Amino acid sequence: MANSVKYYRDFREHLKALEERGKLIRITREINKDTELMPLVRWQFRGLEERDRKAFMFENVIDSKGKRYSMPVTVGTLAATTEIYAIGMMCEPEQIAERWSQAQLNPFDPIKVTSAPVHEIVWQGQDILNGHGLDMIPVPISTPGFDNAPYLTSANWITKDPETGIYNIGNYRSQIKSANRTGGLFTSQHMGQHWRKAKAKGQRLEACIAIGVVPSIAYSATAKIPYDFDEYRLAGGLAGAPVEVVQAKTVDLLVPATAEIIIEGTIPTDIVEPEGPFGEYPGYMGHRTESPFLEVTCITHRQGAIYTALMSQFPPSESSKIKHTGTEKIIYKLLRQDSGNSAVIDVALHDEVSGSGQAFCVIKMRNATKAEAWRALHATAGFNGSYAKVCIAVDEDIDIQDPAMINWALCYNMRPGEDVEISKGKMPGLDPSTYPPGSEHEDRRASSTSALLINAIRPWPYTPVSLPKKEFMERSKQIWEELELPPLKPRMPWFGYSLGAWTKQDEEEADLAVKGDYFETGKKQTGQRKKS
Amino acid sequence: MANSVKYYRDFREHLKALEERGKLIRITREINKDTELMPLVRWQFRGLEERDRKAFMFENVIDSKGKRYSMPVTVGTLAATTEIYAIGMMCEPEQIAERWSQAQLNPFDPIKVTSAPVHEIVWQGQDILNGHGLDMIPVPISTPGFDNAPYLTSANWITKDPETGIYNIGNYRSQIKSANRTGGLFTSQHMGQHWRKAKAKGQRLEACIAIGVVPSIAYSATAKIPYDFDEYRLAGGLAGAPVEVVQAKTVDLLVPATAEIIIEGTIPTDIVEPEGPFGEYPGYMGHRTESPFLEVTCITHRQGAIYTALMSQFPPSESSKIKHTGTEKIIYKLLRQDSGNSAVIDVALHDEVSGSGQAFCVIKMRNATKAEAWRALHATAGFNGSYAKVCIAVDEDIDIQDPAMINWALCYNMRPGEDVEISKGKMPGLDPSTYPPGSEHEDRRASSTSALLINAIRPWPYTPVSLPKKEFMERSKQIWEELELPPLKPRMPWFGYSLGAWTKQDEEEADLAVKGDYFETGKKQTGQRKKS
Repeated sequence: MANSVKYYRDFREHLKALEERGKLIRITREINKDTELMPLVRWQFRGLEERDRKAFMFENVIDSKGKRYSMPVTVGTLAATTEIYAIGMMCEPEQIAERWSQAQLNPFDPIKVTSAPVHEIVWQGQDILNGHGLDMIPVPISTPGFDNAPYLTSANWITKDPETGIYNIGNYRSQIKSANRTGGLFTSQHMGQHWRKAKAKGQRLEACIAIGVVPSIAYSATAKIPYDFDEYRLAGGLAGAPVEVVQAKTVDLLVPATAEIIIEGTIPTDIVEPEGPFGEYPGYMGHRTESPFLEVTCITHRQGAIYTALMSQFPPSESSKIKHTGTEKIIYKLLRQDSGNSAVIDVALHDEVSGSGQAFCVIKMRNATKAEAWRALHATAGFNGSYAKVCIAVDEDIDIQDPAMINWALCYNMRPGEDVEISKGKMPGLDPSTYPPGSEHEDRRASSTSALLINAIRPWPYTPVSLPKKEFMERSKQIWEELELPPLKPRMPWFGYSLGAWTKQDEEEADLAVKGDYFETGKKQTGQRKKS
Repeated sequence: MANSVKYYRDFREHLKALEERGKLIRITREINKDTELMPLVRWQFRGLEERDRKAFMFENVIDSKGKRYSMPVTVGTLAATTEIYAIGMMCEPEQIAERWSQAQLNPFDPIKVTSAPVHEIVWQGQDILNGHGLDMIPVPISTPGFDNAPYLTSANWITKDPETGIYNIGNYRSQIKSANRTGGLFTSQHMGQHWRKAKAKGQRLEACIAIGVVPSIAYSATAKIPYDFDEYRLAGGLAGAPVEVVQAKTVDLLVPATAEIIIEGTIPTDIVEPEGPFGEYPGYMGHRTESPFLEVTCITHRQGAIYTALMSQFPPSESSKIKHTGTEKIIYKLLRQDSGNSAVIDVALHDEVSGSGQAFCVIKMRNATKAEAWRALHATAGFNGSYAKVCIAVDEDIDIQDPAMINWALCYNMRPGEDVEISKGKMPGLDPSTYPPGSEHEDRRASSTSALLINAIRPWPYTPVSLPKKEFMERSKQIWEELELPPLKPRMPWFGYSLGAWTKQDEEEADLAVKGDYFETGKKQTGQRKKS
């Protein structure tokens, strides 16, 4: 971002930007948040090309009991598409990688303010149990028919390390359990470490949930960054300016001053209760767990607050997009900078069904040696355990977003006997193949899986790609257009190119051929006959 | 095919059927066969969706020297798309598999006729060297800029086993070398066995090349069927009626009576000469080889003969489509019938870039046990060596044509440590990863590669797919359409479905949730608290 451009001050400025760019659909008809809202938005992920997907705003929300909510609901504002993600970053899609690198190198401490929009309205004590608790928020059911409750999907949980005071912000599924209680599936995440440290001290853990934040905070909260890297600082780096924070009303935490809604509370550390099932990113319903819960002490919100939901579960979804867009940049930095492997030039985590933005990883490399390819594959195997279960290194000319082109590399560049390795030690995460359903919690924690690493870099120079040379394809495209044949959407590769193995003789014969002089080659070949 | 429907008598009836179905584009403008013709048709394979691809007929063909040809040229008539392939089979696309099974079980012997359209015009002796040899045929250059000559791409080579007399028909690339000589890359194919048997007897091998045949012959000539299965008989089976054949003019072979063109000749067996490079199916230029050649003794053709070319090389192409459509049915029969594995319900060989219709194989199975999955994978590994280098078994709900959905199965159903096997003994074929460029012929023959076998069948019952239940998706699709949002193209899966692991309690809680009664579940959970 150029320094002269000011980042979004709040979610409303961001929403305005989306609408101005034609990326927001407003729905004014009545919508049931429990049965209709998420399925409607889901359709665009199972029925439209990515470029046609949008963010949605529902202005007239009811629930299955006929209750009418004053808050509107948005879905898809953060990452319905890469283009929408780029709007959230205030950059072009192709600048996202560089913006992520810069943000990690140049974070900003947040700045504290004393007066905050999110404190315009404050509910606490009996208010919470009298219609101004979690039940005033129109939380949609994400997977009607399977989820056991509405869940907050864009809940940015804010906690501090009880020992160091360093903040963590993470987005964890949160089952709405009553007007003043919500679950939180965070024990295997960074926030879980805070919770265990509080438990060791015999304390409850204070926590706030921020909803409707500027995108820089949401993007930070969903990326896999190091434990002791405060997400407020990363969000400042992504925005190019500090995040404004304010002291919460009932707990000792700083919260985003311009959020739409803040839920404050404390989490018992001596007790857990059932939570789930909830539709999850691998494309299957997440297991029922035993997890901590937040007891709400206060809810603050802006005048005319907007509830923001994230389209999660089955990939592709907003949650898979938000995860992979940040995390593939982090893996890229890990490989290229932290591991010093300059042959790495790009990383993709697929989410168009496959891999949910984390399990299927493709590394693009330039002129990579065998050693460089394997270093990149092994470094990725050592990255955060639930990422890159399938990891494939390919050459520079392979479109790493195109599964068919990646499979081309598998078919003709990989020699399974030499180029495949099974790598131990992948964490199960929510991967349903790692333990049978109904496994005990401890068995699940003890289980691990493995990764499939494949070096699909061409092992030596290859003959050219078997398509006509560029000049002939260009000329025939002109003819195609003159003939008014159906419009073309060229897909790479659309012309032949050299890959190192092509002799002067090959070139000369090809030149003779296009001039119509191929009988000369045929004649030459009679002089090169051999006994069979 | 219903018995009442008569199969195409010749290529012209087939061409008419294509045109009536809107599948033929006639180009009347002048086209240079050496530089423009194939690149123009190539564009539809790199720039249009499969459903929009067509067959082409060029009626005004010249070459780079300005020579004008009286024969028109067709491309894409056999297999530009699955729909076009089905027209060639005289059936619907979904009937192709059954038609292939029936044809293998019920072949027909050809019948001999004495008078044949293909003998309307006969050129031999000095005619061949005076403008009525191979130079009268407008053979296009397939990969201008890289190929060293025009090659026949839909050359159906007809030979007899010198010992048994059993016929073989195979489609092999054929470099036009002079007016009376063409190369043929067949030594590693069934025809190569005929050639070596003739050589052992100290004889030349007689051969004919048929061009412009009924599709049943072309489909038979491009499928991997057993050595001693006469393709004329299979073609009869595919057509549901015998093929009409006639005695050739200068060699002792029976040729299709209604073909557009027959090239007759003999092949020296004591000598070979250079051949290639030519763009090949793996997506790379095929190596220069030392190969036999046909010396032409006679060319016969119909009045107003049409030259038919096949779009080959870089996948997807007509040659990859024609190959995989037949061969996946043959593998299916091998697995399900010949190997007795009734869990196998479908087989796909990908060709949309990946695998060129042979290397990337996906097997769909119903309720497969671990043993059944591995039996299917191993039987496929034992199939013709250049097929199924990557072979993946998946469950019934996976769309085996969709690479993203297959990758979903890899990510969350496969456990690399247990579900992956490297299988020795794949033939190199034209796989450029098996030997470095410039390897000696003998080294290439001695080399082998391996296959990657993956069991991506779910190892146990899974929780449901994390999408809303069908009823909610259907209801919201109605709302989507009422709102006049952009038209949907639903992609599987578009609703959640059960996969065996879902309890009565899960069901009850989900029912409560969509009724808006989820606080009841939250309340129940307070009674299920445990010490953490």
